[in-house]
Formats: sequence, C-alpha cells, structure tokens
Amino acid sequence: MRVAVLGTGRIGKMHAENIVKHDRTALAAVFDINRESADALAQQFGVTSAASPQEIFAADDVDAILVATATHTHADFIEQSVAAGKPVLCEKPIDLSLERVNACAQKVKGAGVPIQIGFNRRFDPGHKAARDAAHGGEIGALHQVLITSRDPEMPPRSYYETAGGIMRDMTIHDFDLARYMLGESPVEVFATASRLIDPAMMSEIDDHDTVMIIMTCADGKQCHINNSRTATYGYDQRVELMGSTGMLISDNVSPTQVRRYGKKNANASEPYLYFFIERYEAAFAAEIDAFVDAVAAGTEPSPSFEDGRQALILAEAAYRSLAEKRAVRVEEIA
Amino acid sequence: MRVAVLGTGRIGKMHAENIVKHDRTALAAVFDINRESADALAQQFGVTSAASPQEIFAADDVDAILVATATHTHADFIEQSVAAGKPVLCEKPIDLSLERVNACAQKVKGAGVPIQIGFNRRFDPGHKAARDAAHGGEIGALHQVLITSRDPEMPPRSYYETAGGIMRDMTIHDFDLARYMLGESPVEVFATASRLIDPAMMSEIDDHDTVMIIMTCADGKQCHINNSRTATYGYDQRVELMGSTGMLISDNVSPTQVRRYGKKNANASEPYLYFFIERYEAAFAAEIDAFVDAVAAGTEPSPSFEDGRQALILAEAAYRSLAEKRAVRVEEIA
Amino acid sequence: MRVAVLGTGRIGKMHAENIVKHDRTALAAVFDINRESADALAQQFGVTSAASPQEIFAADDVDAILVATATHTHADFIEQSVAAGKPVLCEKPIDLSLERVNACAQKVKGAGVPIQIGFNRRFDPGHKAARDAAHGGEIGALHQVLITSRDPEMPPRSYYETAGGIMRDMTIHDFDLARYMLGESPVEVFATASRLIDPAMMSEIDDHDTVMIIMTCADGKQCHINNSRTATYGYDQRVELMGSTGMLISDNVSPTQVRRYGKKNANASEPYLYFFIERYEAAFAAEIDAFVDAVAAGTEPSPSFEDGRQALILAEAAYRSLAEKRAVRVEEIA
Amino acid sequence: MRVAVLGTGRIGKMHAENIVKHDRTALAAVFDINRESADALAQQFGVTSAASPQEIFAADDVDAILVATATHTHADFIEQSVAAGKPVLCEKPIDLSLERVNACAQKVKGAGVPIQIGFNRRFDPGHKAARDAAHGGEIGALHQVLITSRDPEMPPRSYYETAGGIMRDMTIHDFDLARYMLGESPVEVFATASRLIDPAMMSEIDDHDTVMIIMTCADGKQCHINNSRTATYGYDQRVELMGSTGMLISDNVSPTQVRRYGKKNANASEPYLYFFIERYEAAFAAEIDAFVDAVAAGTEPSPSFEDGRQALILAEAAYRSLAEKRAVRVEEIA
Repeated sequence: MRVAVLGTGRIGKMHAENIVKHDRTALAAVFDINRESADALAQQFGVTSAASPQEIFAADDVDAILVATATHTHADFIEQSVAAGKPVLCEKPIDLSLERVNACAQKVKGAGVPIQIGFNRRFDPGHKAARDAAHGGEIGALHQVLITSRDPEMPPRSYYETAGGIMRDMTIHDFDLARYMLGESPVEVFATASRLIDPAMMSEIDDHDTVMIIMTCADGKQCHINNSRTATYGYDQRVELMGSTGMLISDNVSPTQVRRYGKKNANASEPYLYFFIERYEAAFAAEIDAFVDAVAAGTEPSPSFEDGRQALILAEAAYRSLAEKRAVRVEEIA
Repeated sequence: MRVAVLGTGRIGKMHAENIVKHDRTALAAVFDINRESADALAQQFGVTSAASPQEIFAADDVDAILVATATHTHADFIEQSVAAGKPVLCEKPIDLSLERVNACAQKVKGAGVPIQIGFNRRFDPGHKAARDAAHGGEIGALHQVLITSRDPEMPPRSYYETAGGIMRDMTIHDFDLARYMLGESPVEVFATASRLIDPAMMSEIDDHDTVMIIMTCADGKQCHINNSRTATYGYDQRVELMGSTGMLISDNVSPTQVRRYGKKNANASEPYLYFFIERYEAAFAAEIDAFVDAVAAGTEPSPSFEDGRQALILAEAAYRSLAEKRAVRVEEIA
Repeated sequence: MRVAVLGTGRIGKMHAENIVKHDRTALAAVFDINRESADALAQQFGVTSAASPQEIFAADDVDAILVATATHTHADFIEQSVAAGKPVLCEKPIDLSLERVNACAQKVKGAGVPIQIGFNRRFDPGHKAARDAAHGGEIGALHQVLITSRDPEMPPRSYYETAGGIMRDMTIHDFDLARYMLGESPVEVFATASRLIDPAMMSEIDDHDTVMIIMTCADGKQCHINNSRTATYGYDQRVELMGSTGMLISDNVSPTQVRRYGKKNANASEPYLYFFIERYEAAFAAEIDAFVDAVAAGTEPSPSFEDGRQALILAEAAYRSLAEKRAVRVEEIA
Repeated sequence: MRVAVLGTGRIGKMHAENIVKHDRTALAAVFDINRESADALAQQFGVTSAASPQEIFAADDVDAILVATATHTHADFIEQSVAAGKPVLCEKPIDLSLERVNACAQKVKGAGVPIQIGFNRRFDPGHKAARDAAHGGEIGALHQVLITSRDPEMPPRSYYETAGGIMRDMTIHDFDLARYMLGESPVEVFATASRLIDPAMMSEIDDHDTVMIIMTCADGKQCHINNSRTATYGYDQRVELMGSTGMLISDNVSPTQVRRYGKKNANASEPYLYFFIERYEAAFAAEIDAFVDAVAAGTEPSPSFEDGRQALILAEAAYRSLAEKRAVRVEEIA
C-alpha cells in the first residue's frame, strides 16, 4: 500500500518513517504548507514532495492518505480523501467543532471509503493486553476504569492557542481510551478543570492544565480520568481496570529495566519514556498495521470516524459539565 | 495512662490488645452490652468487666476512654467522657447524623477534655511519610490527590443495615484522609455511586457498593476517591500525591516480600494483607501513641472532633451530589 | 516460661524486650559482666540483676536461659544450662573453635535438655514462606539457591578483633540459611574472600570484607552466597530459589511502601531497613515462639545444636578452601 | 554498507532482517549450505543467493560479511573475510578449540581488517546503561558482579552434540559479559557444573545443564555467574553490580507492563520475553550499528577478536577447574 502523508511536522515525520519501515506499506509522497519541511522529508526517503494536497488526491500511485496536518484541516482532507476514493488514516481530533464533524459525517456517509482515526493508545501492547484480558473475562465483570494521562512538559503558548482546550486536545485521547476499555460509551460525564501549573497563562487563554473527570455507564460502571500538562518523572500513561474477580494495571514504561540503589533510594528506575513518540512507538506501528489490514480486508477500520465523533461528544459534555458544575447526560450533546 | 475500652467487638479487642502492649498505657477495664464478650476479654487481661459504662466513667483508676461501641452510641459516650473529665479516643464516625454531631460539638465545647477520632489511616507509616514529604515540599506544589480504598470482601447484610450508607461508613475514612493529604478541606464535592457487586441487596437496602468521587479545593487542587466493597486481591489502600515537581505513591502492603515466577507469572506477590487490622497494625498502635502524647502534652489531639465533623460534612455533601447529580459546595452543608 | 537473659548488649536487650512482649514468656532475670548495663535493663523491666551467671542457673524461678554474651562464653553457658536442666536458646555461633563445639556436644549429649541456636533468619516470614513453598513442591525440584547477605555498615575495628573472621561471624548465618533452604548439607565448599572496603585494616587484622562462595550438594544442587560488610542502600538480605518449574525470591524489606517519582527517578523506594534488629524484628519474635513451643512439646528445638555445629563446619571448610584455592569436601572437616 | 550473510538459520535470518531495516546497511547476498533456506531468504529480500561462500568473498558489491554459520566454520570464514579484505562480524564463539582460535589470530594479525565478535549482550540498553553508570563512578568502586543467565527451554539433543559443552556454548556469553562489566579480565576461575534438568542425557553426552562460577580479578573484585538450561518463567537475564557506594541491577524484561491482581497473586507480570531474539532485539540492532560505526571510523570493533579469544580462555579455565575441583589461574590456560 502506497501511502501519502499530509503534514510533515513532528507527528507526520514519525508516521512517514513508520510507513517506510512497515513491510506492507511504502511512502508515496508528502505534502506540507511548509514546503521546506516537506522537501526535506521527501528527499530523505526519495519520494515526491507534492505542490498541493490536490496533487496527492489525484495521484494514481497513491493508495491511501495519512493526515497529520493542523486540526482545522482534518475534516476537509477526510472529505477529499473519500471523494478521491482513497482510504484515510487521520490524526485526532477530527475537528474541534462537533457541527463540522457532523457535517463531515454526512458527507462521507455511504461512500464506503475506509476512515481510521489516530487514537494510537488503543494499539499500545500493554493497554491492549489489559483490555483484552478484561474483555475476555479475566477479572470478571468490569466495575471501574482509572486512566492517568499526564504529559511530561507544557507545550509552548502558541500550541494552546489553536488546540481548542485541554479536554478537546489532550483528554480526547482518554475519552477514546475510556470507551475502548469500557467496551461502551459512558452516558454521563462530570468534569473539573483547574489552572495550577501556569495559572496566569491559562487564565489569559481561557484554558486549563489539570483535569479530573468521572464518567458513568448505563449499568453503573465508573470511569475516572486525570490529566496534567506536566509530570517531571516522564510521560505518565496508566490504565487500571477493576473487576469483580481481579484487577489489571497497564503501567508506565521505563527506558530500561535498570534499577538503582544508594544512600537515598532503593529500586529506583529512570524517569519514564519522555513522550508519545517514544512511549507509543509500538502503538504507532501497530496502528498502521491495523489500517492496512482493514483496508485489505474491506472491513471498517477501528477506531472509526464514529469513534472520533464520540470522543468529541464526551469532550463537549465535559465542557458543559465544567461550566454548569453538574453531571451532563451525553444524550444532551449528541 | 489507664485506659478503659467500651465495646469489645473485633475493633475493641484489637484496641485493648494495643493498650496492653503499649509501653505507656495499661488496660483499666472493659465494657460491652454483650457481657460475655466483655468478661472474656477482661479475664484475658486480668482487668475489670464493668457492669455499665457509668461504672467506668465514675472509676478513679480510669484515666481515659476508648470508644469502640456501635456508632449510635459514640456521641453519647463522648459527652459522658467529657462530663467525667476523661480524655476520649472514639472510633469513627462520631454519628451518622450531622445534627447529632453538631449538638455533641456544642455540649463538649470549651470543656477542655481531649477528644480524638479514630481515623487510623493518618497514622499509617507509608501514608504519613508520603504526606510529610509532600507537605515538606518534596513534590513542589500539590496538584492532585488520588485515594483508592477497596475492602477485600462484602460484610454481611446486617452490617449494612446500620452502617448508614457506604459514604458515611467507608468513604468517611477517605474523606478524612483526603483532608489530611490536601492539608485543607475541599470546597466542592461530586459523587457517583453504583450497585455493581450485589445489585439486588444494594437496591433493597438503598445502599451502594462502588463509589467514585471528585473534590476540589478553593485553589483548584483536585482529589479523586474510589471505593469498592470487594477486591479479591486483598485490602486495596493506596494514595497518590501528584505535585508540580514530582509524585509520591503510598502503595499496598504484601504479607511478605516473596515473589513468584513460573509458567504463567513473573514477579508475583501474594495478595495484599487481608483487612484493616493487619494492614493498619502499625497505624492503630501509632494512634494510641498520638493520643497519649496529646493528653500528656495538653495539646489538642489530632484527628480532632472537628476533623470527625468535617469528614461527615463531606459525606453529606457527597450524598446530596449523588441525589442531585451536581457538584455540591461544602458550605451548602456546613 | 520465665526466661533469664545472659548478656545485655544490643542483642541481649532486644531479646529481653521480645521476652517481655511475648505472651507466653516472662523475663526472669538478667546478667552481664558489665553490671551497669544489666542493672539498667533489670530496672527497666522490674527484674533481678543477677550477681553471677551461677545465681541464674541456680534460681528456681528461672525456667530457661537465653545466651547473648560474648561468643567465647557460649559453649560454657550452654553446658551450665544443660547441667542445671534449663532449656537454652544461645546466640550464634556456638564457638569459633570446632574442637570446643565438639567437646561441648559430647558434654551435653543425652542430657535431654533442649538447646536452640539463634539463627534468626530461618524465622523471617519471607524466607520461611519461600522455603516452605519450595519444599512443598511449588517450584518442582530445587536446583540453585542464591543468598545475598550484605551488612549496611562496617562495625568498629574492635568488633573484628574477636569476631573470628567474616566467614565464622557473618557468613555463618548464610551457611545455616543455605542448609535450611537446601533441606540438606552441602558436601563441597569453594570460597573466595577479598579486602575491598578497608584493605589496610583487613590486612592488619587478617580478615576480609567481601566474600563469594559456591557449595554443592551430593546430588549436584548448587548454592551461591555473597557477602559484603557494607551496602549504602541498607541491609541487603535476599534469597533466590531456582527450581525445575519456577523460581521464588524472598526480597528485601523497605520501611514503607512509599515510592518516589521525580526528574531523576521513578518508582524509588527508601533504602532498606537498616539492620538486623529492624529487618528481622518478626523473625526474632518468632524464634522465641519456636523455642517455647519446642520446650513445651518436648521436641528438639530447631535450629538445633547440631545445626550450629554444621554451620561452623561449613565455615571451616570455607577457610580451608580459601587457603588452598580448591573445593573442599565437607567430610574433610567433619 | 552492503553486508552479505553467511548462514541463514534462525540467527542468520534475524541478522539479515536487521541489516535490511538498518538505515546504513543493505543486504547484499546470502549463503547457506542448506540452499533452500538461503534461496528463501534471498527471495524475501530480493538479493542474491550465493552458490558458495567464495562467490561472496569475491563479490565487488559486498562490503562486509556477517558470519552466522555453524561454529566449526567461524574461524575459516573469518580468515577468508580478512583475506578478501572484508570487515567481518562473526557470531560467537570463534571456535571451540583454543588452538584453532590462536592459529586464526596469528593468521589475521596485522591485516587491519575489522573483526567483531557477536557478543550481543554488551549492546543491551539496560546492561550497557548499568555498566556505563558503574564505570562512570555512580556506585563508587566496583566490588561484586552477579550474572544470572538462564535459557527458557532445553534445545534438542542434536544441538548439544556439536555445542561443545555448556560453558563453551552458553556461559561464553557470560564470560564476555563479565569482562565487559568488570572492565578487566578475571585472573582466577572456579566452576561447578551439574546435571539436574536431564541427568540421563547430560551423562550420555558428557555435558551439564546447571552451572555456577566464581571468578576473581587481580585486585580482589569478584564475579558470580549462574546458568540453567531451563527457566519456566522465560529467558532470565540479569546483571547486578555492587559497589562501594551503591548497587545497580539490570533486570529482566517483560513483554508489557501489565500487572495482574487476583485471589492468588498481586502485581504479577507476564513471564519474561521468551528468548534471545525477543529479549535482545535492541541489542542485535545496536550490534550492527557499532560494527558499521567502527568500520566507517576505521577503529577496532568491540567486542574484538581478542575479546572472543579471552572468553574462550575463561571457558577453558572453567573446564579445568571443574575437572580438578580447584581455582584455576587464567594464566595457566593463556
């Protein structure tokens, strides 16, 4: 499968490398509004640096599209991929506006072109093994899900200005992971969000850096999410599944299994892998795998467009909860 | 200090043993409405089995009272201890009714008789070390507190019938622990509670077996609590403190440090210590220590009567939140 | 059982406290050649400070003897206890000279007075659980035993001068633990010993601070021991049992289960419990238990006098191996 | 760098894949005496399946050779690579006979053609990080090294028949790792070896399945190695470095960080990664890296031919020790 990559920023580059390394995909072309960045990557891998996205959608030697551009272009590029009949793997979120996502959904409906959303965490070997064990009955009935998700460091202010708010930008991964772990969508959301790390900046841009959420399912299953924009000890990514007959924890990953012992500490690991590209290296590769498999088999890719929409609905519910200080029924949003 | 124990059930017995073992306390007398139980314990330790609580309050050779009777008697016995001028260490909760607690508060006010409430978890060496490290600045500013508290097994139905609801009976420990860890009282509470372990019984007695809570402080600090009435892997008691420069976890305690390796598992510990008497053995002993110290020094014991009242206020706020599906301001209750 | 303690140094004091705390023993009297030390302890617990050991051996209200005096007095006191018909629990080693131990063995033979040697580590809950699991078949046939035993800090030079060499003083515990774990005595010993921590002093006093040993059983089972006189991270006491179907590790014990996360470390525990009195607190108490049980039941205490002799035989074999740089058959010594 | 692979068995295939994936190497050709195996691999990667090793040594488009054939061919192929002026990365051991290795050393001496020996474990990120930390002074002076190395499962009998004995075949990795960790060669070796897993077969083929070794350096540093041909809990590969101011452990690697909790276990990981291809995946890739770097820089590759020879010398010393039941000076062999 010859895949073109739209967007050659940090994530786009990583995807391009994964496509090159993958034994069933080849990099077909790249595009970025920053032509220099696209050219550099194109040269590195000996592929075309397209002059426009249209060139890519029209190309016969492009079998599929990977969208890693700025968020506000995602829905457009999904629509154009579908129009061109090319399967598309699009980074999250689909859009920051639920209306735009719904409009996009209408447009691509029935076209039969595979769309996969880049919720990479579903493909983390640890998270997946824990989920599969729980869904396979290893801990009986699932009662509680706890998701801890903390970034190692604050992104620059410019990042926040277009990110759409921490719960649409960062928690959105956890909303999707929650649905994946629960095996269903929560029906109710309660959210709190604080400004603890950089209160001044967070107030100015009307955003938050610290989040806690509780969601409940129709049958009473509970899910807790906590987020922080910093964690000095590395990228903190944990999932805990509590069931009637046991518990599963998918824990953090250290760079090595070296442990240190001295006057101050025993059994100390290094700080965790720094950020998503390192922590979810295997997950990003497996994501490509799943996309290729689904396209080859003609089945719907997962996480699907609808999964992307549902995660955004939970984010919307969370923002309403935050504003109104009450549990919001998801059906109020959807 | 010669201490009399009111109530010779499981917890009263344990306290009596701790008083005997403690190098600065002696067991003075015991009382229980079940005379047989009291006699057996009295005989074991060669002390008086009092015919009535009054006998104990009046006794010259009783310096202090430990109350481990049924909850509905706590406030009365606190009042009588205070009237008798005897320092009292009373098991939690003070009462299931906030009115009764407030009335009791009025009555004992200004008497200058030390009252300590039995929130034993504050004295757990691990929890205390984590708290002291956090409050000493080891993790910078505190941002998030996560408390996991799950009992190993469901108590019998009879227990629930007088327990006053999971959040007044079980979560009350975590409400106090949250205040201890946060170093202040939360101002807002959101609670959910489900019936997942024994839905039929829980519905009949209008109680819950699975709880998730979020509380926030005035400055935005967040606290999550989760409870379950069962945990097959033992008594699950964890605290996580997330700060601006680091994180501290006070983790579970295994019976031994033996780890097992075989075809199915590596690095497996035994299930955790079964329940509070084993898990908090050191804490219960340290609780007596603190009581003796405070009485000797003439300082206010901690956790104080007011700490007991505040924990109940959080439980009341949690129940209102559950009923009204909204974040409840603590000041609405208090 | 009324127990008199001979020797009121650090270990004697600890034993005296355990005897006081134990629910089936009482402290009867104490003796030490340092009269002041004995008097202080006697006063603390309200017991007699005997003017001589003879006074204790003759006393009607002394049911048993605990010997915690200097090593060169152990064999004498064992003999005198036996002559007085009083069961004796004697600290390790029985003596530094195998001849003396053999002579003592002859003398006490057939007297039917219970003698237990203070190899406390057999009673450590973790070590014992691992051993019982292995001997119960949990890891199939036992193939390899690894014992790590490192003291936290160098004792003062004066200590070394009468200690008899690291392998008679420190490794002797591991020789006994090896026999306990293996379930039999090794038939061959190879030992190396180095001067790495304080080479100058070690050379002057002709001792060593760092040891590695391999022992083999008749059927080929192997046992490794390593020792160091210092370990900055605390008292390092580990046992690994490798079998045909699994492995068991009895690992170190931390003061609490607190784990720390920051810029430099993740998952860091505090250094391990500092030394034997803290690390083996439960073991020392269980040792008294076992002694009382054996005396009450009229069975031979374990570890027995012969266990004490066998451990010394392994130490002698180790020293011969060190001198001759070869594997020494234990039968060459015994 | 265009690399040809001699030997397309399990290890040769893995190396071929790594060469393909590596961004500075390309697979040039493959050869195996089993032509079918070579053809299959050649076809998979679109490269030449050479009719003979000579074809490869003579090829202009082959820049370097990777030798992964049967052990008895290693020395020949090293000599032929050197004769052809092609840098060679040869799997361990160089040969089972020290005479042959010495003869080979004579032959290749002074040719200036880079030779690297495939001691992959030096490149394990954890082992390397621990070694670098120790050599960088993090634990003060190094005193003791402990290497645990246990294979998950017995190879078939046919394997043993040409393997040359467990200490030349399996321990040889640990001999090299010991030298790498110690930073120098031990001067004395004591070895024991037993037949515990399959005594009948081991006796018939005069081999052993369970090994324990102690080595000492000139300054008294000590090193323990233990081996077992089976470990039900996975490939057990640990290194412990004990120093004057701390300790470092490079621990085993689990497939994921999932931990399981239930009625029987808490904190249980999955069994360790099954075998060397999984466990040392990163190490095998880094080995290629180091080879390419050394060849490019014109520096001597490490581990060098001499490292390969020294490891065999330690194995020879170990076998002499086993036969003569004494510590063998390495200089007796070399």
